[in-house]
Amino acid sequence: MELFLERGFEETTVADIAERAGLTKRTFFRYFADKREVLFAGSEVLVETFVNGVLEAPAEAAPLDAVAAGLDASAAIFEEMPDHAGRRQSLMVSNPELQERELIKMAKLGAAVAAALRERGVAEPAAALAAEAGKTILRVAFERWTEDPHGQDLRALMRESLADLRAVAAAT
Amino acid sequence: MELFLERGFEETTVADIAERAGLTKRTFFRYFADKREVLFAGSEVLVETFVNGVLEAPAEAAPLDAVAAGLDASAAIFEEMPDHAGRRQSLMVSNPELQERELIKMAKLGAAVAAALRERGVAEPAAALAAEAGKTILRVAFERWTEDPHGQDLRALMRESLADLRAVAAAT
Repeated sequence: MELFLERGFEETTVADIAERAGLTKRTFFRYFADKREVLFAGSEVLVETFVNGVLEAPAEAAPLDAVAAGLDASAAIFEEMPDHAGRRQSLMVSNPELQERELIKMAKLGAAVAAALRERGVAEPAAALAAEAGKTILRVAFERWTEDPHGQDLRALMRESLADLRAVAAAT
Repeated sequence: MELFLERGFEETTVADIAERAGLTKRTFFRYFADKREVLFAGSEVLVETFVNGVLEAPAEAAPLDAVAAGLDASAAIFEEMPDHAGRRQSLMVSNPELQERELIKMAKLGAAVAAALRERGVAEPAAALAAEAGKTILRVAFERWTEDPHGQDLRALMRESLADLRAVAAAT
């Protein structure tokens, strides 16, 4: 990611990345399908952590409370490396190709969370709706967090966004 | 789209499409950036219709009620051509490239609806949360509709999904 920030994402080649990391291009491609994947190396951990958070929520927790447990668990991943998150975000906003990949990763996260909710006995479409709500809360809170690194912590912003969503849904 | 269904999306070339439509390849590319775009020709109309529905909702309508007005307006587009929607969906489920493009179009829809809500005076993050809820309701209702073409109409399914979302958000 250093290289992307130094030279720009477009201008950085896989050969550059491999060189900096002391790898051959061939080894690089054993780990990453393409150079975009470098920025999404953590996405499987995110899915796993979120899903485990959902599955481990108390059996009596409502779908959105189970999602909140998944969000809580996920927040720790980002908070361990706040600089990384902010720098990554700055690359994302200026590159449509990266935004595309992000959308795909987020769609996979949504599908995995919906599956975890179904495993908890939540019926469709409630499972899909709650999972998508979780994805949205993650995105909204994450954006607010990276925009203001000296503001509230991510977990607090997630809880606030969840409360905002509940308020939006209740208003008629 | 006929060609995609006959031959498969992967196997159909732009030359094939242009020939069937009586166009040159050059003219094809004047209208579409690539062959995927053929299946998304209606997406600007969808965004416009949804956004207008939101903007034209009564001034006192709550954010999610304004979104519901946008959903109502959008339903008409799909219901005018139910076969098209179902056949398009059958192409989408088997092609990751098309799903990617769909995610991008849906992200644009979400951003446009959030902007329309802000124009109505809805603050962030409520605007983003309500817009994303609208996108989710559209997707969930649309999938249910194409899975069961003899079931409820799309508008009714959207209303039901909105009610489901409200119930999910209210449950604790």
